[in-house]
Amino acid sequence: MKTAEKGLLLVLSAPSGGGKGTVLKELFAQDENLRLSVSATTRAPRPGEVHGEQYYFISREEFEKMIESGGMLEHAQYVGNYYGTPKAPVEKWLDEGRDVVLEIEVQGGQQIKKLCPDCVSVFLLPPSMEVLEKRLRGRGTEEDAVVQKRLGAAREEIPHAQEYDYIVYNDRLEDAVADVQAILRAEKRKYSRNRDCIERVLENAETQ
Amino acid sequence: MKTAEKGLLLVLSAPSGGGKGTVLKELFAQDENLRLSVSATTRAPRPGEVHGEQYYFISREEFEKMIESGGMLEHAQYVGNYYGTPKAPVEKWLDEGRDVVLEIEVQGGQQIKKLCPDCVSVFLLPPSMEVLEKRLRGRGTEEDAVVQKRLGAAREEIPHAQEYDYIVYNDRLEDAVADVQAILRAEKRKYSRNRDCIERVLENAETQ
Repeated sequence: MKTAEKGLLLVLSAPSGGGKGTVLKELFAQDENLRLSVSATTRAPRPGEVHGEQYYFISREEFEKMIESGGMLEHAQYVGNYYGTPKAPVEKWLDEGRDVVLEIEVQGGQQIKKLCPDCVSVFLLPPSMEVLEKRLRGRGTEEDAVVQKRLGAAREEIPHAQEYDYIVYNDRLEDAVADVQAILRAEKRKYSRNRDCIERVLENAETQ
Repeated sequence: MKTAEKGLLLVLSAPSGGGKGTVLKELFAQDENLRLSVSATTRAPRPGEVHGEQYYFISREEFEKMIESGGMLEHAQYVGNYYGTPKAPVEKWLDEGRDVVLEIEVQGGQQIKKLCPDCVSVFLLPPSMEVLEKRLRGRGTEEDAVVQKRLGAAREEIPHAQEYDYIVYNDRLEDAVADVQAILRAEKRKYSRNRDCIERVLENAETQ
């Protein structure tokens, strides 16, 4: 009955320090069918970040060439740098029936929803601004001025939560992970994604 | 963050023999927050059925009095009998933050969606008509003519699946139960049910 169909495109956004990385790590540890779309960016790698893992770190020139040739599913500028989603691997995985996670900036999320009305969008909210600030400082890689700048950006990003399908509070990690898993599972059961179900069940009756 | 809010109303429908009872039994075994709205009916109890458990078995006169006084959330006629949902217990549980399951006939489901646009509706589909027929015969309480009548009704009911939010195949019990649990969990994370989330997170920032 449940044939392998096209995968689900999950757009995940959060303000900086919202803990997207931690939630995703746990999601991928638990779900073999999930693929992560690695974004491209023009920003400099942080200590420990590896090209092709957290991001493809490319130059402004390379990035702009990809935009021009239609190779980016979406792109945005954020704190002076480009961020974007290379199109080819996403389409390949979806066709293979994999679910694909796009971890993108809030601006990118708005573009994605227009490009791909079928996707499922999740906004990961910190339980409070206080927790968000602690997480940003705890990362230890940012100067105070950068933390302030990111907090300011977060205050502007959080109201965009209303443009997303689902809100997940990133309070307890295991709850946030289970919420995202439930969203993926439930979305696959939506009638709008199973329009052939009636025909399938009834046709079987004729062929007996 | 996640305060106890009004519960979720889950409308569950399936053709006769669709295995609603088995799925519900397992759901209730796993979720203490769930309450079952016991329906009222004018049909005769089957062997083993207890008044107040599977149904409130009441007379046609009593049933019609409840309709007239507005005490039924919905009601329908099916194979010559009334089925309906007494309103008072449902509203009480939802206010207490319990999720309430309404296990109702397909006709009832259409009415409920009009009465309560906030509810979540799930149509439990048998994997095939063949399996449905086996389940109906396996029950062992029905004559062949009754099985044929119920199969005919099922063929008319199944196309109504398109009026429901979610389709769950009742193939493997544990999958069907996990699907319904995921639907409940995901629905609670919908932005439309969390419109105060932005305010909550940002207000916290002002009060530090």
